Amino acid sequence: MKQSLGANTLAQPTPVWVVGSYDATGKANMMTAAWGGICCSKPPCVTVSLRAERHSHAAIMARKAFTVSVPSQRHVAEADYVGMVSGSVADKFAVTGLTATKSDLVDAPYVEEFPLVIECRLLQTVDLGAHTQFIGEILDVKADANVLDTDGHIDLARLLPLIFAPGSSKYYGVGDVVAQAFSAGKRFSK
Amino acid sequence: MKQSLGANTLAQPTPVWVVGSYDATGKANMMTAAWGGICCSKPPCVTVSLRAERHSHAAIMARKAFTVSVPSQRHVAEADYVGMVSGSVADKFAVTGLTATKSDLVDAPYVEEFPLVIECRLLQTVDLGAHTQFIGEILDVKADANVLDTDGHIDLARLLPLIFAPGSSKYYGVGDVVAQAFSAGKRFSK
Repeated sequence: MKQSLGANTLAQPTPVWVVGSYDATGKANMMTAAWGGICCSKPPCVTVSLRAERHSHAAIMARKAFTVSVPSQRHVAEADYVGMVSGSVADKFAVTGLTATKSDLVDAPYVEEFPLVIECRLLQTVDLGAHTQFIGEILDVKADANVLDTDGHIDLARLLPLIFAPGSSKYYGVGDVVAQAFSAGKRFSK
Repeated sequence: MKQSLGANTLAQPTPVWVVGSYDATGKANMMTAAWGGICCSKPPCVTVSLRAERHSHAAIMARKAFTVSVPSQRHVAEADYVGMVSGSVADKFAVTGLTATKSDLVDAPYVEEFPLVIECRLLQTVDLGAHTQFIGEILDVKADANVLDTDGHIDLARLLPLIFAPGSSKYYGVGDVVAQAFSAGKRFSK
């Protein structure tokens, strides 16, 4: 017998992503978003949802571009701060000491110190209510060499991405490998 | 200096969610999706992306409803199987021995044995290319009492949700609590 928790955004887990953009004055800005995910394989697309009143909202609309930088556990305080303060009142790169690197593919900056970055061209927006969904076509993914395994794949034990838990508002790390996908389930195939 | 990995869906982390629907014959079906996330707080909405050729795609279109059931690590083999085989050729509930419980809010079944379920009314679809994004309004979230902490919040150490890593295609578990959100970043505020 399951217990009702109401009509709430309690899906688990959600990512901790930092969205980069340039504002109207040309200042590099960033904000943390947990509402997002991959939404298409071909073309490769990622979505992040932002409230209309966010400083980044107008910035992405104007430049038609954004980046997603994935912080590691090491930068949890920076990632948290970036989600609490508006770029309209603070220079978040200056305050945190993080470096804004201009993407050479889209008109948006990414966070140099974060080990994984995704550069996106704004494809579409979907107004849903409190949030606007920004769908970006992924033009490139860039990673620090030291988070890749010997096959060239991203190793989460090296990337150390954060997970956000809606409800408790806790950040969790990633645990051990549980299984290999497209393999563990074969025991049910005849 | 970051290394380019190309235009790929390599965002990390992504969730492991099982999408429930009834097909045209009334059979309960489920499939695993890692392309998805929360996309709006008010109304509370969640999105999952499915390929047009998936059996679940037509099912959700017809009934305008779906559920998201979040498997725990314990059910990693079932969750993996459900993502490998089509509901057009297999009765995945029968094969795995999982129980389809009809939602009392929407015309879709959820997985009784999974500790967290989300019941959604189809709000909108967005065709993006290989995938269609299904945006669902969350009408209720239900959880097993034993995954809740003393504050009534979902405790990921009890829920044990899975994480999918695009690229390596590995399933990971969740690790330790790293920090409290809206708190860890205060050290950067003046």
